[in-house]
Amino acid sequence: MSKVIAGATMSLDGFIAGPGESGFDLLFQWYGNGDVEIPSDSPNVPASRVSAASAELVQAEYAGIGALVVGRHLYDMTKAWGGRHPLGVTTVVLTHQRPADRPEDDENFVFVTEGIEAAVAKARELAGGKNVVVNGGQMARQCLEAGLLDEVGVELVPVVLGAGKPLFAELSGAPVQFEGPHTVVQGTGVTHLRYRVKK
Amino acid sequence: MSKVIAGATMSLDGFIAGPGESGFDLLFQWYGNGDVEIPSDSPNVPASRVSAASAELVQAEYAGIGALVVGRHLYDMTKAWGGRHPLGVTTVVLTHQRPADRPEDDENFVFVTEGIEAAVAKARELAGGKNVVVNGGQMARQCLEAGLLDEVGVELVPVVLGAGKPLFAELSGAPVQFEGPHTVVQGTGVTHLRYRVKK
Repeated sequence: MSKVIAGATMSLDGFIAGPGESGFDLLFQWYGNGDVEIPSDSPNVPASRVSAASAELVQAEYAGIGALVVGRHLYDMTKAWGGRHPLGVTTVVLTHQRPADRPEDDENFVFVTEGIEAAVAKARELAGGKNVVVNGGQMARQCLEAGLLDEVGVELVPVVLGAGKPLFAELSGAPVQFEGPHTVVQGTGVTHLRYRVKK
Repeated sequence: MSKVIAGATMSLDGFIAGPGESGFDLLFQWYGNGDVEIPSDSPNVPASRVSAASAELVQAEYAGIGALVVGRHLYDMTKAWGGRHPLGVTTVVLTHQRPADRPEDDENFVFVTEGIEAAVAKARELAGGKNVVVNGGQMARQCLEAGLLDEVGVELVPVVLGAGKPLFAELSGAPVQFEGPHTVVQGTGVTHLRYRVKK
């Protein structure tokens, strides 16, 4: 069955971005430190080169993804990945207001203004039975709070950022326990951990 | 050669204690969810029962520990573990002032007031070639900042606490990169990760 999965690369001290949107060079080193090329569908994002261990895991996971849900912040920060997400699937953007420069939904981006439930429902519909991946700390938090989340995938990297954006920023209802990890894969400069959300 | 190792059980969002010293029941579940008994030398702390995978790792590590360094906060919070640390080695307590109820150093506790370098030096001397383990977020931070730390051991547990005490609280000089993990062991409800500090 289609799952809703929050995914994030995180520092050892729990941050998905350092202070003032810093630290991405350190967080995302694992996307460039290996020998296996993973193509990108984005005109702005180069192909990644990851370790064999990372590639074996993420290629299988990527093949199972049918649609993405991201927040407007990530969409803006990446400049819409130049027009298409690297994973080459339709990206549902949760936003208060549609961007003026993209009046029409298309196969690259669909905009939802009615909240996280509507965004995930739209992504499920677009995913056609495949999984929905949710990116960004606020989106992960909202999905978890709304009971929509099935799994959490953390790419844990050996850097201490000291401050920044937590993976589940200002989560209400903490503490929350997960099950697992059911999968632990050690890549080069990254530990891939996969947890299930208790329902 | 003798190593200085910071060790901590940490939530998935990077906290070694929840708000108001909460969350220890969740953080330390892995000490009680297994079949292998690990004895305690403390009159106040019961033997732990950990999974076979956790036991294989930590028993080997415990055998290599010659002395501990803790902060006064941990010493007070645990009420001196009832008189002796569970691991049964001399515990060096870094403090501004010696506790009035323990005028003499003994084989259980040695008090150091001259700062982290002096505390670690004393522990190295007591350890007789074995490793020194440093517990508590402030101690870990001070050791890392002073360049005294060789390794970091994190017992990562699948709980999100949302807030609390970070492993390396208010670290100056962040970001800091580690090497590894060179060891990843999945126990029941805990992922043991071992990193080296870049020197």
